[in-house]
Amino acid sequence: MTPKESMVIEAFRRALRIKTDSDDVELFGLDSATICATVDTLVASTDVPPTMSLRNAARKAVASCVSDFAAKGIRPSVGLVSVVLPKKITKSQINQLAAGTAEAAREFGIQILGGDTNEGNETAISVCIIGKRPRRIPRRGGAHAGDLIMTTGAFGTASVGLYISMSRQKLKGAKKFMLRARREFMRPSPPLEFCVHSSALFSSSMDSSDGLGTTLHEMASQSRVRFEIDALPIDDGLYKFASCNKLDALELVLYGGEEYATVFTCKRSARTALQRRADKLGIQLYEIGHVLKGRGVYATNLGNRFRVQNRGWKHL
Amino acid sequence: MTPKESMVIEAFRRALRIKTDSDDVELFGLDSATICATVDTLVASTDVPPTMSLRNAARKAVASCVSDFAAKGIRPSVGLVSVVLPKKITKSQINQLAAGTAEAAREFGIQILGGDTNEGNETAISVCIIGKRPRRIPRRGGAHAGDLIMTTGAFGTASVGLYISMSRQKLKGAKKFMLRARREFMRPSPPLEFCVHSSALFSSSMDSSDGLGTTLHEMASQSRVRFEIDALPIDDGLYKFASCNKLDALELVLYGGEEYATVFTCKRSARTALQRRADKLGIQLYEIGHVLKGRGVYATNLGNRFRVQNRGWKHL
Repeated sequence: MTPKESMVIEAFRRALRIKTDSDDVELFGLDSATICATVDTLVASTDVPPTMSLRNAARKAVASCVSDFAAKGIRPSVGLVSVVLPKKITKSQINQLAAGTAEAAREFGIQILGGDTNEGNETAISVCIIGKRPRRIPRRGGAHAGDLIMTTGAFGTASVGLYISMSRQKLKGAKKFMLRARREFMRPSPPLEFCVHSSALFSSSMDSSDGLGTTLHEMASQSRVRFEIDALPIDDGLYKFASCNKLDALELVLYGGEEYATVFTCKRSARTALQRRADKLGIQLYEIGHVLKGRGVYATNLGNRFRVQNRGWKHL
Repeated sequence: MTPKESMVIEAFRRALRIKTDSDDVELFGLDSATICATVDTLVASTDVPPTMSLRNAARKAVASCVSDFAAKGIRPSVGLVSVVLPKKITKSQINQLAAGTAEAAREFGIQILGGDTNEGNETAISVCIIGKRPRRIPRRGGAHAGDLIMTTGAFGTASVGLYISMSRQKLKGAKKFMLRARREFMRPSPPLEFCVHSSALFSSSMDSSDGLGTTLHEMASQSRVRFEIDALPIDDGLYKFASCNKLDALELVLYGGEEYATVFTCKRSARTALQRRADKLGIQLYEIGHVLKGRGVYATNLGNRFRVQNRGWKHL
């Protein structure tokens, strides 16, 4: 989180008198049903490299909202889409945006009800999704000493995908890994089914799209515990790619961001059940560490123990 | 509606298989409660003239969503805000945006629960508001032959306000009217209280922020009736200001847009009750015409009858 983002969040929280801890989705009661909602905006100049199709951009705008819901084990029901389009946008680009939105809606079972269209200097897509609150929602602050820390995917791979799609020079590395990395960046797949069926076993959880470092910090701090990471969730191909291209693998894994995975904690006794469900759904689980009494986030990698920094992008 | 907006709406409706008639809010059921939601985005380069403070811009982003709810007689409960900010934004500008959002939240009784912050080339604010569906909602398509057509305010004044705030030359006209016009543009006041208490008497209704002409067309067409306008809702000062500054008053009233009023139809027998309620709340009602069998929108002004054009801005 840059000082500026932090300033924005604080200014809004202060003015709006928001006193609850931040979480991935907002919960509220309306009459007898309790509803969850979240909103996310994807902006062309910041989030969409020139090599990304507008179809994938629109799909990703929806997927990034779904990632927030997935982390809390909530199935989205309906959505609204607000698009900002530059004057010079073509018919084929408009069709791509519509197709990507529709693709994501089908993929994640969301009924898009409508929205609005606006003109601006650059393309932006705001997506709001709404769903029914399940009986119990794991919060960011529910981790207990003794719990395991797990992730639903590898970290660093998606930021390699971003790096590849922005790079003008020819990169070295295994083709298969590079394809996987590019795909993970272009077409993220939040673990919705896995989390909807497993969140009852999470003691705490959080969407990781702001980066692993900041996610671990937020969870540890809201839970008032210490996170000790001893096995970073790294794809086998990442170290090789990083060393071939003179990149810092640890930097990519901890602070790269762009992953739409869920980080969660759970009791040791839940491990087998979770692993079975993950196998069934083709989700790769990483057991990355454990929760201790204390404060802070520490990691050990190749025998070297260090303090994980609280860097990344943060939501309101 | 420009051909491009129409294209965007059609592309999204086709891809998302949205088959219902467009309306101001989206309705959906979640468990036992039925929910309403709407989303609107305000973009700096399109919606915020340089003389408008960011506080007023943020307030207007919320007010424009509220206008959709007001038109349907729905009280918003909660909201989410997604802001896009350029890198060079200052702390004071951030505070202005937060203060304007909070001001609108207080004014319209909305609890803003959270949202997210993003970086982009220009400032944009997406607001999503959610509320409980009342027993009955007037739709755009409910007007019947014999009904009266009414508006909750004058038209053309707010577009004069926009014209004033964009104009570089000194404008002639009554100071009082110009101040009123500027205020109406900068700080629109959707008739939330009036509509929440009166919508049971509306046979059809619609938010008018896309302009009077397109609003009347949409209502007449969805209702499969003819709208006959014989008394345009004009502020006394508008004709004078328009003639002083060589502007077309009719153009401003019918196609200027920027009004956040509700246009509705009702039975003749409802007139007295509605007028009484409007007087109590300081809302100026205009009875502008009546509904007939047939199709289309016609207006008579200064003895001249003409076909009202279907121009303006349209939502998805």
